[in-house]
Amino acid sequence: MVVEDSDFSGFDFDDDEDGFEGGSQSERVPTGIKGFDELCGGGLLKNRSYLVSGNAGSGKSTFSIQYLHNGVVEYDEPGILVVTEEDPKNIRENMKSYNMDLKKLEQHDKLAILDSQSAKVGIPTDEEYVEVDPFDMDSTLKRIVEIKEDIGAKRCVFDSTTSLGFVSDTQKQLRINFLKLSATLSAIGLTSLLTSEVLDKNRMSRFDMEEFVTEGTIRLYNERKEGVRSRSIEVYKMRGSDHSKKINPFEISSKGIEVHPKEDVYF
Amino acid sequence: MVVEDSDFSGFDFDDDEDGFEGGSQSERVPTGIKGFDELCGGGLLKNRSYLVSGNAGSGKSTFSIQYLHNGVVEYDEPGILVVTEEDPKNIRENMKSYNMDLKKLEQHDKLAILDSQSAKVGIPTDEEYVEVDPFDMDSTLKRIVEIKEDIGAKRCVFDSTTSLGFVSDTQKQLRINFLKLSATLSAIGLTSLLTSEVLDKNRMSRFDMEEFVTEGTIRLYNERKEGVRSRSIEVYKMRGSDHSKKINPFEISSKGIEVHPKEDVYF
Amino acid sequence: MVVEDSDFSGFDFDDDEDGFEGGSQSERVPTGIKGFDELCGGGLLKNRSYLVSGNAGSGKSTFSIQYLHNGVVEYDEPGILVVTEEDPKNIRENMKSYNMDLKKLEQHDKLAILDSQSAKVGIPTDEEYVEVDPFDMDSTLKRIVEIKEDIGAKRCVFDSTTSLGFVSDTQKQLRINFLKLSATLSAIGLTSLLTSEVLDKNRMSRFDMEEFVTEGTIRLYNERKEGVRSRSIEVYKMRGSDHSKKINPFEISSKGIEVHPKEDVYF
Amino acid sequence: MVVEDSDFSGFDFDDDEDGFEGGSQSERVPTGIKGFDELCGGGLLKNRSYLVSGNAGSGKSTFSIQYLHNGVVEYDEPGILVVTEEDPKNIRENMKSYNMDLKKLEQHDKLAILDSQSAKVGIPTDEEYVEVDPFDMDSTLKRIVEIKEDIGAKRCVFDSTTSLGFVSDTQKQLRINFLKLSATLSAIGLTSLLTSEVLDKNRMSRFDMEEFVTEGTIRLYNERKEGVRSRSIEVYKMRGSDHSKKINPFEISSKGIEVHPKEDVYF
Amino acid sequence: MVVEDSDFSGFDFDDDEDGFEGGSQSERVPTGIKGFDELCGGGLLKNRSYLVSGNAGSGKSTFSIQYLHNGVVEYDEPGILVVTEEDPKNIRENMKSYNMDLKKLEQHDKLAILDSQSAKVGIPTDEEYVEVDPFDMDSTLKRIVEIKEDIGAKRCVFDSTTSLGFVSDTQKQLRINFLKLSATLSAIGLTSLLTSEVLDKNRMSRFDMEEFVTEGTIRLYNERKEGVRSRSIEVYKMRGSDHSKKINPFEISSKGIEVHPKEDVYF
Amino acid sequence: MVVEDSDFSGFDFDDDEDGFEGGSQSERVPTGIKGFDELCGGGLLKNRSYLVSGNAGSGKSTFSIQYLHNGVVEYDEPGILVVTEEDPKNIRENMKSYNMDLKKLEQHDKLAILDSQSAKVGIPTDEEYVEVDPFDMDSTLKRIVEIKEDIGAKRCVFDSTTSLGFVSDTQKQLRINFLKLSATLSAIGLTSLLTSEVLDKNRMSRFDMEEFVTEGTIRLYNERKEGVRSRSIEVYKMRGSDHSKKINPFEISSKGIEVHPKEDVYF
Repeated sequence: MVVEDSDFSGFDFDDDEDGFEGGSQSERVPTGIKGFDELCGGGLLKNRSYLVSGNAGSGKSTFSIQYLHNGVVEYDEPGILVVTEEDPKNIRENMKSYNMDLKKLEQHDKLAILDSQSAKVGIPTDEEYVEVDPFDMDSTLKRIVEIKEDIGAKRCVFDSTTSLGFVSDTQKQLRINFLKLSATLSAIGLTSLLTSEVLDKNRMSRFDMEEFVTEGTIRLYNERKEGVRSRSIEVYKMRGSDHSKKINPFEISSKGIEVHPKEDVYF
Repeated sequence: MVVEDSDFSGFDFDDDEDGFEGGSQSERVPTGIKGFDELCGGGLLKNRSYLVSGNAGSGKSTFSIQYLHNGVVEYDEPGILVVTEEDPKNIRENMKSYNMDLKKLEQHDKLAILDSQSAKVGIPTDEEYVEVDPFDMDSTLKRIVEIKEDIGAKRCVFDSTTSLGFVSDTQKQLRINFLKLSATLSAIGLTSLLTSEVLDKNRMSRFDMEEFVTEGTIRLYNERKEGVRSRSIEVYKMRGSDHSKKINPFEISSKGIEVHPKEDVYF
Repeated sequence: MVVEDSDFSGFDFDDDEDGFEGGSQSERVPTGIKGFDELCGGGLLKNRSYLVSGNAGSGKSTFSIQYLHNGVVEYDEPGILVVTEEDPKNIRENMKSYNMDLKKLEQHDKLAILDSQSAKVGIPTDEEYVEVDPFDMDSTLKRIVEIKEDIGAKRCVFDSTTSLGFVSDTQKQLRINFLKLSATLSAIGLTSLLTSEVLDKNRMSRFDMEEFVTEGTIRLYNERKEGVRSRSIEVYKMRGSDHSKKINPFEISSKGIEVHPKEDVYF
Repeated sequence: MVVEDSDFSGFDFDDDEDGFEGGSQSERVPTGIKGFDELCGGGLLKNRSYLVSGNAGSGKSTFSIQYLHNGVVEYDEPGILVVTEEDPKNIRENMKSYNMDLKKLEQHDKLAILDSQSAKVGIPTDEEYVEVDPFDMDSTLKRIVEIKEDIGAKRCVFDSTTSLGFVSDTQKQLRINFLKLSATLSAIGLTSLLTSEVLDKNRMSRFDMEEFVTEGTIRLYNERKEGVRSRSIEVYKMRGSDHSKKINPFEISSKGIEVHPKEDVYF
Repeated sequence: MVVEDSDFSGFDFDDDEDGFEGGSQSERVPTGIKGFDELCGGGLLKNRSYLVSGNAGSGKSTFSIQYLHNGVVEYDEPGILVVTEEDPKNIRENMKSYNMDLKKLEQHDKLAILDSQSAKVGIPTDEEYVEVDPFDMDSTLKRIVEIKEDIGAKRCVFDSTTSLGFVSDTQKQLRINFLKLSATLSAIGLTSLLTSEVLDKNRMSRFDMEEFVTEGTIRLYNERKEGVRSRSIEVYKMRGSDHSKKINPFEISSKGIEVHPKEDVYF
Repeated sequence: MVVEDSDFSGFDFDDDEDGFEGGSQSERVPTGIKGFDELCGGGLLKNRSYLVSGNAGSGKSTFSIQYLHNGVVEYDEPGILVVTEEDPKNIRENMKSYNMDLKKLEQHDKLAILDSQSAKVGIPTDEEYVEVDPFDMDSTLKRIVEIKEDIGAKRCVFDSTTSLGFVSDTQKQLRINFLKLSATLSAIGLTSLLTSEVLDKNRMSRFDMEEFVTEGTIRLYNERKEGVRSRSIEVYKMRGSDHSKKINPFEISSKGIEVHPKEDVYF
């Protein structure tokens, strides 16, 4: 039995390629982030959507973009970066601090940045990929599918999912939109990171549901202890995979994020 | 005096078989999960609905599906798995890590996975059992009844009940829908586990009422202590049955969930 | 001056028998629950309504039904059990664990179980007493009055009052409905227990008002301490009666609830 | 300049007798409750309205009714008791435990109990003073004024003010109704106690505003410490009067409430 | 550029006299309250509006009225007291305890009490200054301006600003009304105290915004420590002025409020 | 691809000058505040918008205005101060305490104060720059653009962003308006500070989203410790820049704010 949803009926859902039936099961997609992949058995599971959550300044965007950057540079997997509330120019500039030259990747059609911020705030943009209707979930998904076709992307980052609040009038709709985003990215053959803003250290997401409907949750912490902030990371949940139960410190330097899987964190 | 509700008037409510009147009272349905059944006098009570609650990543789905898997393999009781927000393909793949081959059970008509996610998020599916109207409680119940007839199921898992929020506009309606689900599964002769997402360790359910209207509550914990997560389980409530008052540690390995009923947990 | 409310104008309000004017004042209705009556001067005050509140699994239903059971067996006082969200069959089965045979009491017309759950969730029932309109407070009260006439009941249990939320659209209406229930049961000559679900250990009721508008509150606790649950009970409030100020441990065994009035509880 | 409100234009506002201009300033109204009056310079200030707040079972009603009872017996000041959610019969019976015979006071026209509960819950009553429209503030106030004329009352108790929620649709209206009640009782020459239900020990009232708009607040506590409840009282606020800053223990025995002003309470 | 608001176009905004341009900058208005002015460099800044916030019974009204009383007696500055929820008669009587005879000040036209309570609660009043439309902010402001003209007031107390909730339907409107009150009092040349009720010791105001939109906040505490209440005061914020960073104890005696600027408070 | 928003189509978006493409990357804009710039690698990043958040009285306005003042005096960069809820006259007077003469800067066209408060509260003003429609975001932004053209501003302070609540009916709209403000100021070539009121020490902003959608967050604290308040500052987040992870004390004296980057704070 097949349910056809007209919105997506033309898409190439690559079940054959990557699905459960014939593909190699539990195929891993390494992040290439130093010290991280060994926390979760070698990397993310292929074609799954993961939550990357943390408070402001915890390194969510850096972690996620580094995942895309490594994808291209180390594994030759093109990627899509959906930016919902930041200026792509600033992102390119910020990433230079970590020695990631996004512009170069873009020029070689290995990275596409989808700007869904400009139209939303109503300022002109000269970006190549622009979401002209950032208040409609289906429109955004169609745009992602098109770009995937264009550059043959294997990885995707959606930063941040709080913007789903813009396209959802009720909690119910929000949850469905989140499910739709997460399931569609998986179905079209993308291994994805979805960032989520959290407000206190005991929560896992902005809307208290994202961690339940994704295949895994990577939690970044940026906590104060006696007047100093320190960073740590936890693979909180990863369905279908063994993973570390510990919280590990990490640092952000000119080489980007580096996790210390042998060190402990107490807080 | 009999109240007939037209929606269900054709169902085979098997009072004769399993009800209080003539049946053997307090008949047990073992979960087969190592170390668990001895916490509650040998297993669940037949034809009752139990809540399995826990935070994200606490093992609710694994516990519940292992209950179904053991049902078939050890007790020859077919089962139904209702999946409301996950891709059945991912579930099958995830369970392989624990050496459970769901596909095989399905092929022998011992397990049916009812996919109520695909239609909800609007992506195509080639699943055998699909809920085409996942926003209507009565439709879902009818589908479960049909499948029960098909495969002669004795066990059911509904994962997760948070999705009842989708079919309920008010707290009142939500509670009635929860009651309806729980009572109908019992009435048609299924011993069921209903999963519930919890947000903090002092609560028992998502909507603060599920533990009151089910016959029992099994609570899974996944708590952080000094930078490490550890797992534990509690039979919090079980009407009509003696049960352990302790919280016990458990682990998830390639053999699935294993409870350690002799060990203690302090938190 | 007399206000006549047409809804109840035909009822037999037994002022003469039990009221303040001529009756023996402060007449006691023993619960017969071992160790409990001595906490409150020998029992409940006649024709009053008391709240029995506790978290899920704390023993509210067992305590209340034991009160009814003892009423028949030890004091020859028939009783009514109003069940709002549970299957009467399950209750009968559960109570067998505590050696209470409700069916026998019912067959001798000493106990009536009013099933207001079946109609609500829309499943057929062969119960003798069924509330066909469980969403109307006055209808439910009339049904209780009829049954009282039928079996000459002196005691009543309403399990649980959370269901009043179903018949009330606002906090105001809820409070009036609660008052109406409590006052009507008293006025027609029933000594009643009304159960209430509580969500944390510092509260006394579901809606934060039931303890104020009943004549007394019996609070059951089921608290975790270092990985183990233990049970305790408190007569929190009892208007017009001296009562213990201590919290006492109790246990539930095959003999039902037994309170230990000489032992202390610290938490 | 005089603002005339037609609703009250016929009332006898006894400015001449008790007002600031000519009357003896800071005239005291002793409660007669043993140990209490010395906490606040000899008693309440004449023609003021005070809040008596506390959790359920803390003794609010007993304190307030004892104030009325002492008023008649010790100071020959008739009193009015407005009962909003309890059966007057039960109150009379309860008070007998403390050796207060309210019926006798009523028979000598020294006490009037205004039953505003019966009409609200719709059960018949044979009380002498009945509020037939308990959902209208002005109607209730008129009734109080009439009764004051009848028996020459000097004291009043309104138990409880939570019922003002019934006559107020918004927070704004609630506050005005509370002000209206408090100000009108003062204006017609009654020294009054208004009870308020509180839900936790750090709050002073039900709606978090009553303590601000009354002339004083008497706070009763009923707190648990290591498995035992104990009672204490505090004059939290008393405008225009010196008062104790300490919390003192009190007990309720067959002699009613007795405060121990020399003893301390620590919690 | 000048924006003329018709409501106020006839007012005498005394920019010339007290404004920044020509006036002596940072002119001080001493409160005359013993020990207080030295906490804030000699007094309040002229023509500014300050918040006086505290829980019930903390002394907000006493502090504020003492500021007005001292204004007349020590500095010959007439004052306006706007009373929104108390009977002016009671205030006059209360203040006598602290040896402040408000009546005398009123008789010499040095103090005006604007009664905005009577009309609100609908009881007659024989006060000289009455606000007949206490539910309209502009009407109240016009009344204050008129009275200022009448008695040449330099100081104003608005007690309490919680009543602004009565004239505001939304948070947005409330904030604008608060701004309007504060800015208008400043603009017409009054140095003002605005009282605010707070509910817990970590907050600064009723609506969590008053401290941000006033020029300063004086916080009164009335905290319990081991069964005893003690009083303290803090100049929490004072724009454009140096001020103490400490919390100091104060007492209320027959001489009114007296701050002890050399003593510390720990809580 | 270019999205043109008609509202801003005539603006001079200075991509050429300061954007990523050709400009010097990571150009720094020093605040000139003693001890601060060394916390964040020499200053703010050019053409970014930063949040300055803190509780009332924490020094947000002083910090921000000092940034503007230093801009003119030390770096010859004109600035715009948007004042949403304070009287510009008071600000000028307040700043004199810190030896900043804003009037002089204004007279030399180096500083423009946009008064968006007067029209809002409806009092006359003789300010040069007045926002006549302070309830419309686009109108305010246009006004800022005009002033930027007038005086060639490079820096901007918007004090405070809580006023965005006035122009937003929903959370969704509020977030978009905040994004629009922040992105437009960047796009037209201003390096900006946006102040935000916070209510407790664990939060970063008023609406719990501002820290996520700005390029950085500077957090000011004003915390009580044993009866004394002390001040501290933290560069909580700064995208694209290394920055201190410590919280440092600062003081406000006649020289304005001075941060002590070598000292620690513990709370």
